[in-house]
Formats: sequence, structure tokens, C-alpha cells
Amino acid sequence: MEAYLDNSATTRVFPQVQKLMIETMDEQYGNPSSLHSRGMAAEEYVTRAAQQIADTLKVDRKEIVFTSGGTESNNMALMGGAFAAKRRGNHIITTQIEHASVSGPLKFLQEHGFVVTYLSVDREGHISLEELQEALREDTILVSLMYVNNEIGAVEPIAEAAKLVKAYNPQILIHVDAIQAYGKYVIRPKRLHIDLMSVSGHKIHGPKGIGFLYLNEKVRIQPLVYGGGQQKGMRSGTENVPGIAGMGLAARMMYEQHEEQIERLYQLREQLIKGMSEIEGVTLNGALDRTNAPHIVSASFAGIRSEVLLHSLEAKGIYVSAGSACSSNKPAVSATLTAIGVDQALLDSTLRFSFGHFNTEEQIDYTIEVLQEILPRLRKYTRM
Amino acid sequence: MEAYLDNSATTRVFPQVQKLMIETMDEQYGNPSSLHSRGMAAEEYVTRAAQQIADTLKVDRKEIVFTSGGTESNNMALMGGAFAAKRRGNHIITTQIEHASVSGPLKFLQEHGFVVTYLSVDREGHISLEELQEALREDTILVSLMYVNNEIGAVEPIAEAAKLVKAYNPQILIHVDAIQAYGKYVIRPKRLHIDLMSVSGHKIHGPKGIGFLYLNEKVRIQPLVYGGGQQKGMRSGTENVPGIAGMGLAARMMYEQHEEQIERLYQLREQLIKGMSEIEGVTLNGALDRTNAPHIVSASFAGIRSEVLLHSLEAKGIYVSAGSACSSNKPAVSATLTAIGVDQALLDSTLRFSFGHFNTEEQIDYTIEVLQEILPRLRKYTRM
Repeated sequence: MEAYLDNSATTRVFPQVQKLMIETMDEQYGNPSSLHSRGMAAEEYVTRAAQQIADTLKVDRKEIVFTSGGTESNNMALMGGAFAAKRRGNHIITTQIEHASVSGPLKFLQEHGFVVTYLSVDREGHISLEELQEALREDTILVSLMYVNNEIGAVEPIAEAAKLVKAYNPQILIHVDAIQAYGKYVIRPKRLHIDLMSVSGHKIHGPKGIGFLYLNEKVRIQPLVYGGGQQKGMRSGTENVPGIAGMGLAARMMYEQHEEQIERLYQLREQLIKGMSEIEGVTLNGALDRTNAPHIVSASFAGIRSEVLLHSLEAKGIYVSAGSACSSNKPAVSATLTAIGVDQALLDSTLRFSFGHFNTEEQIDYTIEVLQEILPRLRKYTRM
Repeated sequence: MEAYLDNSATTRVFPQVQKLMIETMDEQYGNPSSLHSRGMAAEEYVTRAAQQIADTLKVDRKEIVFTSGGTESNNMALMGGAFAAKRRGNHIITTQIEHASVSGPLKFLQEHGFVVTYLSVDREGHISLEELQEALREDTILVSLMYVNNEIGAVEPIAEAAKLVKAYNPQILIHVDAIQAYGKYVIRPKRLHIDLMSVSGHKIHGPKGIGFLYLNEKVRIQPLVYGGGQQKGMRSGTENVPGIAGMGLAARMMYEQHEEQIERLYQLREQLIKGMSEIEGVTLNGALDRTNAPHIVSASFAGIRSEVLLHSLEAKGIYVSAGSACSSNKPAVSATLTAIGVDQALLDSTLRFSFGHFNTEEQIDYTIEVLQEILPRLRKYTRM
């Protein structure tokens, strides 16, 4: 049996999405900027995808800017937002557990005169609203919070945090990295006072190399990429029509029978949590109830190096991630696991199991069986 | 009959490329950063594509950085090159006929303290080496030249220009926008002293949303996008595996039976030039011989607005571009046509016909017939 449990790293593309992509490569391959009907046909795919996405967020389709993925969306939001607002101040607030595509550009901004406050989190990975309140300053221009943490699935209190920030100063931009949240949660940026929100296509059974930034129509940020003036000048470059069309359809599909799908993911999660909590020497990280995201389980295995366990699972057809993922494959200590206070000894013994649309109960049963079988064996041979 | 003659805007994807892309979406959908075999299988597609591209350029595959397309490659080269070199100076040299994805970021750099010299071109679109020599200064850090102009197909003297620049000061970075040249010309960056070179996937019958930057291993530039540290930190973000694999194969295919293919393109070009030069009121722009690129014909039609002719051709199944293309569909006066001295009255009467692998002699014959038929009719009804 095979069990691909690395869906937070990337997902398999829906067959319907593949089919649509081929259609745009084979028949409707025009450039949306071309004035003839082949160009216009291509543009229609782009417009339709923007509308499909906008519908899931209840926003205007003109507020969707297509990018090359979540990383670019985060870079564009943070650099574009910070540089556009720098006359008002240079202070930015974020958390200690952001993905590298947020902490990376923030580090760049720090080197260019911006000051960043990193909020701590509790054992379940949640920020404190009090700490956020205290961090706000007169020169604060931007607050960037992730919706769902990519390593443990912690869900941040976006609504309350944004309300608090906007009450302090409505001009402060709110950016949300929703890369692990979109498709899992019903998100209403307008109601939540979100100005900028990043999403990736390949986390929702859509294509790699495509993402979007929700950009509130009233917000002005600086583009990251200049050129032909596509997408109202916000993101130049010939639109990736197959990627955009594919992501639009994937977005729509993620919100079809949405409640049932989320229920199913939670059941898989709870099944795995139950199975693992019965195995000796396994510590589960983060919140185990439904305050956590439905698709991520983080577990530490005392006395076993994560890489060893990862490859032992792989030999049985089970694919998971070591600590973080969807960042480059160089090993590094996880900022998230450190921030939530995972035992030093367990930091390098932690795996992430993440679910998607194609996972089944049988796969989870199988995973538990395999863990029961191999963990004692690995412990026997491991000295840590 | 249909004749898609807008291949400089974008091309139809090779069927073999589509097939490979589906394979990476359906079976090998892993994240190259994942440590398990599904991740490694995905990484192999990336490595293979880098090697396929490197082979066409006779460079090391580690010198290929994948981007989201030609526009990002140009932005990354120019911004990344300029900011990395700013301690040495702030002067940049380019031409008056660059694509917006070069002139756009250069305008941004001008607003941030850089000084740009724009070289003029002659009637055929060629820069003057004397003017380049005179433009070089002690504080020059970067020279950016396009290899093939996207509107008229003019070929710039890259080898001579780069030699001259490096003789003046070997530290000056040479960037070449090869987006319209790659696949048409055998390019050897090392021999030509090119430090940075931009290429787009969708101009070579590869996918949209993917491109690469050749980055000489000895050259350090600043990344445009920060995050997980993929591609040795030069371009973070989960690699677009299907796009990368597809572009690698398309690159290889473009250089198979390369001489025959180029000969075929020149024959199509000469066939169209011959046919059009026999029609009254048609002016051909740029060099008509084989010093020009094989796939572009620029023609002005006295007394007829380009948009009117474009739509009349479209009604007959012939797809072309008005003036420039692959930039946004807002009308603007073409910098290239102005720079080569096209008559003011003809600026808005110019079309671009551009060829690709799927065009045939019959399509060119058909295009000439249609032009012969509709031009007199359009002139009768047009007042300009």
C-alpha cells in the first residue's frame, strides 16, 4: 500500500485540473495580451479563474493578482507593502513561527531599515493578543500573521488580531499567509479586515508555479516585478494561463462539499492521533482537538532521528516530512518547534503527517500498523 | 485555413512537452524539497531539465536558475545585478528598443538612484558600437542588450559589444535578454562573455509561467524573491516541476535538427516578404536579409489602422500582433518603431507576423492571398 502523507509540502493535481490545463496548452494557447480572438480566449480563462477564486472569498475578482506561487505572493505583499508605506513608519509585526517565505523577505527588510517585532507563541502555537496589542507602535505599518502554521497546523486568531490592529490604527496593513489555510477554512478577507493574503496553487491540488495575492482594492503596494503592465501593472509578465485556469478550478473544487471534506480530514487526523497516542514514546505536538487545522499532525519520536524514521516509512510506501518542509532540503532547526517549546532532544525526532483529498482511512490504518512495527526495531538500533 | 502567426507573443506547447508535464502532475507530483523518494524523483526532473538547457548553451547546469518567466528573469538580472554592484557605481547602459520587462525595471532603478544611458539604433534596429564605447564610464556597472528585438527581429552585435565592454572594464556585468533569440540562435554565453541571460519557456513551444536566468557561476547578484532557499538561495519557492521539465524538453527539441528548422523559418519569412513586397502600400521594417531573425516580419500598411487589419485577418483565421505584443493590451506608441525611424503616419499601421514550428508554406501563401484581397477593400473604407 502507498500513503502519500506529505500534502502540506505539495499535493497531487486533480485530474479535472490537468484536463483543463491541457486544453489551454493544446487549443487555447494564445497570449492574453494579444488583441485577436485567440488572445481573448486565453484572457477568458484568466478572468474565469479570478472569478472562481473571488467567489470562494466573496471579494471582487479585480482583487486577485496572480503570482508564481505562495513564496512570490508573500514577498510581494511584504516588500510591496512595506516600501509603499515607508513614509508612515518602518515597524513591522509578525510571529516567531512564520514560514521562510515570510521570515526571509522580513529579514531583507530589516537589512533595509525596517524594524521587525516577532511575537512569541504558546505551546499550541498561538500568539497572544495582549502581546500583539503591546507590540503596536505609532510607526507600525504592517502586521503579517500566518493563518495556519505549516509545521503543526496551529490556527492563529486572525479575526481578533486584525480587529485589534485596525482599532489601534486602520492604516496598518494586515497581511495573512493563508497558504496552508486556503481550501481548509472559509475565509472572508473583507469581514476579517485582511488587506493582503497569500495563497499557493499546489497546496490545493492545483498546479505548481502558480499562486495569488488577494489585494484589497483600496490598498496600494509596490510591484515586485515590472514590465508589460499585465494585471493592472501589479504583476507584469505573460499570464501563466494553464496554471491560472488550473488553480481557479482547484479552488472551486476545494470549496465544493467543503464541510464534508473537512470532516473527512478531521476524521483522518483523529484516527492517526488516536493510533499514535497508543504507541510508546510518541509525543504529539500542538492542539489535538478541532481548534487545530484538519490536515496536519506533528509527532515526535523519542530516541529516533526523524530522517531515519522518514526513510523507514518511505520503504513501506509512506511519505511524510521531517519537521518543516516545502523549504529547501537543507536541514535546519525548526523555528516553529523551538517556539512552541518542543524538547531539545525531540527537535530532530519530529515528523509531519499531512493529508489531502486522496487519502483514505485504510492508509491511516496502514501507517499506524507500520509505525507499531518499525518503531521498536529502530529504537533498538539507534543511539541518540 | 488557420494561420497562427503570433509566435513571438506565445507559442503552442509541443505535444511531447504536454505529455511530460502530465507525467509530473499525475505520477511524480512530489516536492523537490521533500526528503523522500517522491521528492527525489521530482528533483530529478529539475536536474534533468537544467542539464538539457545547459547542454544547449555549453554551460554548467548549476548556472541555470529557474524563474516564473522571461519578465522575472529580466527583473532579477537587472535589479539583482544593479543592487549587488552598487558599491562600484550606478551607471547602466541599455538600448532604446528593449522590451518593457527590461525598460520597466530600469525605470524603477532610475527612481532609486541609478543612471541609465539608452543607446540609439539605426533604421535596421542595430546599436552602434562606437556609441556604446563612448557611453562607457568609470561608474558603469551593467550593460543590458537584447539579442533579438521582439518587434522587428533585429539582431544586436552581442559578441562585439560584450568584448568591447569587458575590454573597458571586466567587472561590468553583461546581461542579455535572449527571450526572442533562444531556440533560434546557437548561443554560447561563456564565449560571448555574457554574465546573465534571460529566457522564457513559452516562446519556444514550452509552458507559460516558466523561464530561466543563466547566471555565470562567478557572478553574484541579489535575489528578487526570498524564502525556503531553493536553487541555492537564488530563487526561493517550490520549483514548478512540470513547467521546468516541460521547458527542458522544449529547449532540447528546439536545438534538434536546428539548422533545418532555422532554414525553414527563413524560407517562410522570405516567402512572406516576397509576397508582401508585391502588394502596393506595404512597407517592410528592419533588415530583410538573413542578418535579421528568422521568425519575425514587421510590415506597415499605409492608410490602414493596425487594429482594423488585425481583426480583418483574424476573421480569416490569421492571427498576428499589432506593433509590439506580449505586453499588456493597452495601446501605446512603439519605442522600437519610433527608434528605427518608422514614419509617424505608419506607426499605428504596423503589424508583426511571427513564425513557429507549426507554421507551413501553405499558411504563408494563404496569408498573402488574404492580404491581396482585403487591403484594397480596407483602404476604400478607411480615412486616416
